Amino acid sequence: MTEYDANKLKEFRSFLKKIKSYEEAVGLMYWDLRTGAPKKGVEMRSEVIGVLSGEAFRLSTSEQMADYLDYFSEPGRLAELGSIDQRIVTESKKDYERSKKIPPEKYEAYVVLTSQAESVWEEAKEAGDWDMFKPYLEKVVEVNLEFIELWGYEGHKYNTLLDMYEPGMTVEKLDQVFGALREKAVPLLSALQSSPDQPDTSFMHQQFDKEKQRQFSLFILGQMGYDFNAGRLDETVHPFATGLNPGDVRITTRFLPDDVNSALFGTIHEGGHALYEQNISTELNGTPLSTGTSMGIHESQSRFWENMIGRSKEFWSRYYGDLQKNYPGQFDDVSVEQFYRATNQVQPSLIRIEADELTYNLHIMVRYEIEKALFSGAAKVADLPELWNAKYKEYLGVEPANNGEGVLQDVHWSSGAFGYFPSYALGNIYAAQFMNTMKKELPNLDKLIAEGNLLPIKEWLTEKVYRHGKALNPGEIMLQVTGEELNPDYLVQYLEQKYKEIYRL
Amino acid sequence: MTEYDANKLKEFRSFLKKIKSYEEAVGLMYWDLRTGAPKKGVEMRSEVIGVLSGEAFRLSTSEQMADYLDYFSEPGRLAELGSIDQRIVTESKKDYERSKKIPPEKYEAYVVLTSQAESVWEEAKEAGDWDMFKPYLEKVVEVNLEFIELWGYEGHKYNTLLDMYEPGMTVEKLDQVFGALREKAVPLLSALQSSPDQPDTSFMHQQFDKEKQRQFSLFILGQMGYDFNAGRLDETVHPFATGLNPGDVRITTRFLPDDVNSALFGTIHEGGHALYEQNISTELNGTPLSTGTSMGIHESQSRFWENMIGRSKEFWSRYYGDLQKNYPGQFDDVSVEQFYRATNQVQPSLIRIEADELTYNLHIMVRYEIEKALFSGAAKVADLPELWNAKYKEYLGVEPANNGEGVLQDVHWSSGAFGYFPSYALGNIYAAQFMNTMKKELPNLDKLIAEGNLLPIKEWLTEKVYRHGKALNPGEIMLQVTGEELNPDYLVQYLEQKYKEIYRL
Repeated sequence: MTEYDANKLKEFRSFLKKIKSYEEAVGLMYWDLRTGAPKKGVEMRSEVIGVLSGEAFRLSTSEQMADYLDYFSEPGRLAELGSIDQRIVTESKKDYERSKKIPPEKYEAYVVLTSQAESVWEEAKEAGDWDMFKPYLEKVVEVNLEFIELWGYEGHKYNTLLDMYEPGMTVEKLDQVFGALREKAVPLLSALQSSPDQPDTSFMHQQFDKEKQRQFSLFILGQMGYDFNAGRLDETVHPFATGLNPGDVRITTRFLPDDVNSALFGTIHEGGHALYEQNISTELNGTPLSTGTSMGIHESQSRFWENMIGRSKEFWSRYYGDLQKNYPGQFDDVSVEQFYRATNQVQPSLIRIEADELTYNLHIMVRYEIEKALFSGAAKVADLPELWNAKYKEYLGVEPANNGEGVLQDVHWSSGAFGYFPSYALGNIYAAQFMNTMKKELPNLDKLIAEGNLLPIKEWLTEKVYRHGKALNPGEIMLQVTGEELNPDYLVQYLEQKYKEIYRL
Repeated sequence: MTEYDANKLKEFRSFLKKIKSYEEAVGLMYWDLRTGAPKKGVEMRSEVIGVLSGEAFRLSTSEQMADYLDYFSEPGRLAELGSIDQRIVTESKKDYERSKKIPPEKYEAYVVLTSQAESVWEEAKEAGDWDMFKPYLEKVVEVNLEFIELWGYEGHKYNTLLDMYEPGMTVEKLDQVFGALREKAVPLLSALQSSPDQPDTSFMHQQFDKEKQRQFSLFILGQMGYDFNAGRLDETVHPFATGLNPGDVRITTRFLPDDVNSALFGTIHEGGHALYEQNISTELNGTPLSTGTSMGIHESQSRFWENMIGRSKEFWSRYYGDLQKNYPGQFDDVSVEQFYRATNQVQPSLIRIEADELTYNLHIMVRYEIEKALFSGAAKVADLPELWNAKYKEYLGVEPANNGEGVLQDVHWSSGAFGYFPSYALGNIYAAQFMNTMKKELPNLDKLIAEGNLLPIKEWLTEKVYRHGKALNPGEIMLQVTGEELNPDYLVQYLEQKYKEIYRL
């Protein structure tokens, strides 16, 4: 046992809070850029963001950080720390080591490269011009391979990238989990497609007043327990949620004039992310643990609220009357059953972000297989369009007419975010596991939803997931809450049960 | 002649840009706090502001800053610098020395004191309770006296405070200028009050739709040449303008449901501040010179646009039709002459912020006389209520019923902003001087306004005032633009001519 210096711990905490302060300021500047900052100020604002992010990075990789980490990582001392401080030290050390292994000039060059790649991608996507983007993507992949060598890896090289978004995730686990899911999802999809009883969705595409859409979005957020004293709803082209601190978690949505779904489910989705961030324990304020624990767990919350609550029969049995009142005359001839079925239409499409709950996972698997192949060396960037189209055919039965709606559709690769995509499908899997446990622990769950009594659900999730922030890692949370590791069976059961009923199979 | 190291100049510029970056981030956070940040995030956000402001202050007073200033202040080297860099060095040195003369622990204690004094003031004002606020104000004045000793002073101690807001301003000048103005303003006021022909203002107080008020505010801002690609209009309880950088200058206004004036002239006022900041030369970007040169010159621009343009006969001859159309049916029975007279009603009141163009100056002089007396020792804080009431009686002919609408009405003293008030009246004086010169250089000025051709006015002010930012000080600007120093005669002439006509004397 080695006693630690309590003052030194205080100093370390305040040092970490300083880093977090820079990050919070940068977060607000990004929010502002996306919600209405005047365009002529953007250039200077980007420089300001650069200065503050650079300062946060400099502190994170400083001698001072190294000293604190050396001191507190000493096993005897680490053991003496409280569990939160222990986790702070190990998380900070992990980040520190990852950052330190990349020489600063290499990292700076990479930032320039990805920023160029992103603008080229935008143009290339618009024009459907793969050849324009290809050399940039080749370079981005090449640099990522270099980084993997510097960071080190166990097993598959891609594991190192997966771990950045989902700590502990590996190709070995994902192959098994995605394989099991795909094995059931692909036949389910073709069964649904061949059902003679397809939902009618025509009434979803009327003209919907924007202010009314906003009112209904605000109403549903309130029902979910989103705290408007700790957040706000704005409008952007691409909806997002951003947790600046647990008292300031903002969401945005998009109001399409001729589609009632987009704002409605987009808002619930971002609201799910926001509930997570708003309910992180204040004990973790100002520490690196005051954030969601992984992209996958975060996504499990947005998808839990969007799909498992927001697209459930019970939810609409309670809220359909409110929706009808909100759009007078527009849903008079639509029954709640028709509306519920329409919100759950399954249809293979080319575009990930428009995909339904079932096919979404298949879109992700296409990308996962490609990323895996890129980093094992089984595929080259040049092979991607062909690979993409073949996988879409295989998993979803559709083929893009051009690369703009194919291999060029997502921004992620241009920014070097390899390993991110699996989080989306992991979110669906985790969400179904949470739902399965919640049903046991809140035995009247269906009734609660049907009564619009959603707060016990938020409280359960707060207790089990939200409050822990990053103090527990995804594997620990799953084990602690559900008693199991990642397991795709619950999602498969959920999808089969729900969709066979909807499609009357 | 001593050659300077060009690389060192580059480094210094980038060091200054870093400070400016922190300030810009802090500016955005303040804007956000006032325009809709969720209240539960305020506590953490305040800490973030504290960290970034503290960092900016630390850099401004660092050894590194001292080294740069020592190096470039060396007379031979200074003379070799371009005029902008020379001014950057002298301005930075002035700030550095002012900051360094206060021991950090004294400064920190003062920040705590004024923050307490501000909250006590808020409560005391609400309750009209002078005794509650008095001990805090005594302490604030005492610390300011200590600071003056540390900073040093020439002539009157109050000069050191005046110089912070209006470089070069002194009690000697203000006594003369305010004296000359008061000598004419007080009799003019009583003449106007005794006129049998008082304007009717009843039609200003109907119910005005908020969205329509917003539309008209946006329209007028566009007419003034406010660049919406370099700014935005939001709504706050207390209107303000904030220049984050010349490409991002935001304004806010307040829409009162039963008063068409408040948003209209409030918007033009803030729009005037904003035109100044939007049109600072981009050459000064990222330097400490990229801001208005003084509070007085800044206020001259808001008041020039609000009063000399926005409350002119020519302006309403052009825009009254638009206003009538904007509020259908609400001004059918009001002639443009009636409307014009109503916008220029003169009425002594107790409250500064509601004062008209003529009496405003008298409200300022009350405060100026009191501040002067406090710092010469001629008055004690305990004397203030009595002094205040006597001066209001003398200058404006009115007396407050309680201290809430009297000596407690403004926030400035609680925050220690002594020396600030004179800027408001200086703004009026400067504005009249600019108008006098502009009339000579744009001989068809009345016609331009009457045609709604306001851009040449903005361009003239940009050329003469705006683009220089802080690269010229107020005295230099006045001399360069008008050929004269501060001179109250033009304001006197303007007020006499305008108001005698309006009041048919």
